[in-house]
Amino acid sequence: MIDVILTGDVLKTISKAMVALVSEARFHFKQEGFHSRAVDPANVAMVIVEVPAESFEAYTVEGEEEEEIIGVDVNRIYDISKTIKSKELVELKVEETEMIVKFGSVQYSVQLIDPSAIRKEPKVPNLDLPAKIVLDAGEFKKVISAADKVSDHVVFRSDDTGFYIEAKGDVDRIEFHMSEAELIEFNKAVARSMFSVEYLKEFVKVASSGDLLTIYLGTNYPVRLVFDVCDGKAKVEYILAPRIEE
Amino acid sequence: MIDVILTGDVLKTISKAMVALVSEARFHFKQEGFHSRAVDPANVAMVIVEVPAESFEAYTVEGEEEEEIIGVDVNRIYDISKTIKSKELVELKVEETEMIVKFGSVQYSVQLIDPSAIRKEPKVPNLDLPAKIVLDAGEFKKVISAADKVSDHVVFRSDDTGFYIEAKGDVDRIEFHMSEAELIEFNKAVARSMFSVEYLKEFVKVASSGDLLTIYLGTNYPVRLVFDVCDGKAKVEYILAPRIEE
Amino acid sequence: MIDVILTGDVLKTISKAMVALVSEARFHFKQEGFHSRAVDPANVAMVIVEVPAESFEAYTVEGEEEEEIIGVDVNRIYDISKTIKSKELVELKVEETEMIVKFGSVQYSVQLIDPSAIRKEPKVPNLDLPAKIVLDAGEFKKVISAADKVSDHVVFRSDDTGFYIEAKGDVDRIEFHMSEAELIEFNKAVARSMFSVEYLKEFVKVASSGDLLTIYLGTNYPVRLVFDVCDGKAKVEYILAPRIEE
Repeated sequence: MIDVILTGDVLKTISKAMVALVSEARFHFKQEGFHSRAVDPANVAMVIVEVPAESFEAYTVEGEEEEEIIGVDVNRIYDISKTIKSKELVELKVEETEMIVKFGSVQYSVQLIDPSAIRKEPKVPNLDLPAKIVLDAGEFKKVISAADKVSDHVVFRSDDTGFYIEAKGDVDRIEFHMSEAELIEFNKAVARSMFSVEYLKEFVKVASSGDLLTIYLGTNYPVRLVFDVCDGKAKVEYILAPRIEE
Repeated sequence: MIDVILTGDVLKTISKAMVALVSEARFHFKQEGFHSRAVDPANVAMVIVEVPAESFEAYTVEGEEEEEIIGVDVNRIYDISKTIKSKELVELKVEETEMIVKFGSVQYSVQLIDPSAIRKEPKVPNLDLPAKIVLDAGEFKKVISAADKVSDHVVFRSDDTGFYIEAKGDVDRIEFHMSEAELIEFNKAVARSMFSVEYLKEFVKVASSGDLLTIYLGTNYPVRLVFDVCDGKAKVEYILAPRIEE
Repeated sequence: MIDVILTGDVLKTISKAMVALVSEARFHFKQEGFHSRAVDPANVAMVIVEVPAESFEAYTVEGEEEEEIIGVDVNRIYDISKTIKSKELVELKVEETEMIVKFGSVQYSVQLIDPSAIRKEPKVPNLDLPAKIVLDAGEFKKVISAADKVSDHVVFRSDDTGFYIEAKGDVDRIEFHMSEAELIEFNKAVARSMFSVEYLKEFVKVASSGDLLTIYLGTNYPVRLVFDVCDGKAKVEYILAPRIEE
């Protein structure tokens, strides 16, 4: 039995985060809270969404198993969530093969998907990433959108002079640089990897100016981008495989 | 002789209301005020627009007949009205075969259409509709736009538990419900009819949040949707034929 | 050596003004300030942009010649400038064959174009234009956009009753009129010329409500449109050849 109440912004962020990589996902409801995880069809990126029980306005999850799992068409949920105001309360209630999405005077009944028909979530990889960089997610979003006009790949690198994002096009280049003083947190570790802008562009859609972004970076290794969203009520993490520099 | 002054929002609403169903219409100017009426080419819906003389800033209508009638390309007028600010004054003046639309330092001369070349307005049907429901037009607008994502038809129904709008798609459903306490006015009569979302979508374009909407509903019978718009200065009524439920 | 600092709005306006007519331009930096000039491929219009040294926040131009000239892809600069806030400071610095555009934590390196590969600027013609009309540029912008819906050409005319802009379509007409009292400045001279709306539509994009526009008009002669933009920090002038009235 799943019957929870959350604010519109949280539902919208959860679904938007998943939609960046997949169209169907498994939603897990445990006593501690909600989580969902998925890998894109090309196996290049993983998304992990977590909302602790305390971030819900009401949270009732009961069952014989340790967790309740439902299969959801995330595009559909994202579509619905766009019509809900940020601070409006939404009730999600699972009834047999349907999820009821209720807000104001409106209630949607959305058909659930058999979770076993959805690709199983892979394990979260154990990554040893030396550099930790914390900055404003809005700032990062601007740079990615700027880099997108110049090239289809970017280099993230860090050393004791700061954190850099660089994109090189056929004729133009763009460089973003923040020193330790300008970053919210930075351990000055040396790291350097290249990533596809195509994926990063999708990831930054969940972020707003004012949100915290923590980047864990290695050398020629996947990056972890952890976004603190909805005033800290939810966490969206993306893990992205590097591209090989020629 | 027709020479009237009105605010930009009224001109825009009048023309937008007509454009939902037709591209040409007859504008009637009587001593009591303005009205226009039209039926869509498929004969499924009728629009009736009324603006009493008091809602104009100035209203001079003189002639030998009881009313002055002109034929107007409503798309053209709607196009022009979009460039006028809501509270800006507009003068409409008929000069021979032209209507002058004047506001600020600009004046348009729009060619009139011979009224006899425009399809004659049908009589307003006499409908016996038991249920009367009054609610915020903005709320109604939101539901119609939500229903549109689920299905191409909706059921309006009412009984002593309240007023319902329901749409059923292939997999998802949406239900809107307001009890007597949530409605502005409601007579608890029993009624139920099904309508095309395509038409309703066009109708709600004239409405804003805060406007009153009065719905007169019967069973397998046309519905009357009466919108009080422009702070009560104008009335836009749509009559829509029902679809047959299978 | 060129190293200057200006606000985002000025960079955006400069590049937007040039983009209306050409995709590549020569930027001239003298001790007194910046200017650029170009003619469109059809030889119908000329643009002249001027920003005095005082309008820059910092202005260092050094070299053996009287002026430093660089060749610039103005579309590229315009694209970049759109991501800069109006009051944000931007540094432009020329380094060998690149121009560095630096703001916030971001810097772009934009490849320069060999100035000799760009079509040479023609001389500014000496025009004897009797009528001088000064009005709000925002008002002018609105009329041009309205005229565009009616016809592809407009007549500008002036006499002692005021300044007129007229467009005649197949069925509709539009007339804009401002008397001496409504204009900011007007010398009541008689003039009349016809112009292409296609060009005027592009020109007005640099103007905002509140900017001053000075029109110098003759009879069947080119018009000069001088826009005072960015709170007087920059001047954008367009010279447009007349169309022959049939």
